[in-house]
Amino acid sequence: VRTLALVAEYDGTGYCGFQRQAAAPTIAGELESALATLLGEEVHLVAAGRTDAGVHATGQVVSFTTSSDFALQRLAIAVNGLLRERRIAVLRAIQRPADFSARFDALARSYRYRILNRVAPSPLERLRAFHVSAALDLEAMREAARLLEGEHDFAAFSAHDPRASHTTRRLSSLRITRDAEHVNLDVTADSFLHHMVRIVTGTLIEVARHKRSPASVAELLAAGSARARAGFTAPPHGLYLTHVLYADPV
Amino acid sequence: VRTLALVAEYDGTGYCGFQRQAAAPTIAGELESALATLLGEEVHLVAAGRTDAGVHATGQVVSFTTSSDFALQRLAIAVNGLLRERRIAVLRAIQRPADFSARFDALARSYRYRILNRVAPSPLERLRAFHVSAALDLEAMREAARLLEGEHDFAAFSAHDPRASHTTRRLSSLRITRDAEHVNLDVTADSFLHHMVRIVTGTLIEVARHKRSPASVAELLAAGSARARAGFTAPPHGLYLTHVLYADPV
Repeated sequence: VRTLALVAEYDGTGYCGFQRQAAAPTIAGELESALATLLGEEVHLVAAGRTDAGVHATGQVVSFTTSSDFALQRLAIAVNGLLRERRIAVLRAIQRPADFSARFDALARSYRYRILNRVAPSPLERLRAFHVSAALDLEAMREAARLLEGEHDFAAFSAHDPRASHTTRRLSSLRITRDAEHVNLDVTADSFLHHMVRIVTGTLIEVARHKRSPASVAELLAAGSARARAGFTAPPHGLYLTHVLYADPV
Repeated sequence: VRTLALVAEYDGTGYCGFQRQAAAPTIAGELESALATLLGEEVHLVAAGRTDAGVHATGQVVSFTTSSDFALQRLAIAVNGLLRERRIAVLRAIQRPADFSARFDALARSYRYRILNRVAPSPLERLRAFHVSAALDLEAMREAARLLEGEHDFAAFSAHDPRASHTTRRLSSLRITRDAEHVNLDVTADSFLHHMVRIVTGTLIEVARHKRSPASVAELLAAGSARARAGFTAPPHGLYLTHVLYADPV
């Protein structure tokens, strides 16, 4: 029995998120089916980040155990052959120690949120970036972003009931850059609450449009409660899981 | 009666090319229908480049005449509102002199061909770039590209019967650049023969894979005949019409 890790890219459009569901297309469902066909046994994936419906990934990491002796160096190409018509691809496959978990061994996750910031919508970026036609004040956005960095109670930036779980997270980096017509938010944390990146993005867009002050972000953190009104939840199609950090890089 | 020019972006996927067809979805068909609804009269578009099925555009230019007095500054937003579910957007609209033709007044067209050059396919770039997993020798590709620049008979690089028309074109620039996992071909000419960019690209990919020599490209030009065997026709989904040059820029 080996424990394997796969790095995967996917177009989240049309999938009901990562987690397998009985009657809906999901990333895990497609990938587990392809692996089962290839390895001749059922496969159960553990993922570093359980992305929501419509969210993309360029660096998702999943792990699983298998008793198949299928050659590791041919695994990615073989899986991609089976996934040819699908919107998922395996970028590489590596063996890990027996007790490795893509989820529990992850030290940090990085996401990118892509905003298309111009007047006209873009057909080529339609489900790849969130279109914001209004002018964005990036300096105000960065001022608010700096307040979010560090260890805080992010309950106000979560879709979950904050009483249900521990809501403190360590946000190690939140950078905002402009690249021609795009504004990109790159955020890294030990882990994220449900919808956290999208609520942070929606809130920072409101700051960038001068609909709320940068300082108001600190008030939301201090309130530490979902009753505090953070910004809107930015849509899933601008969000990408880009990288997962492990002590021993995958 | 005014003559208007529109700059348009589109995702060519799922369209049977630019030119209107009675029973198939086309760029012109969608755009003419939206404009007719908005302006209350039939519209006939003239395009700078009649892109093929599956080919994209970020800077297509079309022109038409209208007797409607619809406000020019609201036209792009209004058309895009009607095109909301479609894969076409108008980036801007401007008035031109009465005799302006997007086709006949164009001094040069620029296309980009995007190659994704890595082992694994990319779901997010699936119909946005041509996936080539083999190593590409860009220096050989550039050596061949330099031989194509200038005024030549491009009959060997055309899908059309060369006896049917004038096949000399002035290729003012053909640049090849690498940007992380992408190799981009940026090509500008006064105009292009049918499939010319895609056959040039296919031929240069064969050079880059050492399947033909850079010098063989000069032999194809010298032969000046479709019977000379150029390379394969690269698929449409890597091709973008990026810019059209006019004496008075649109």
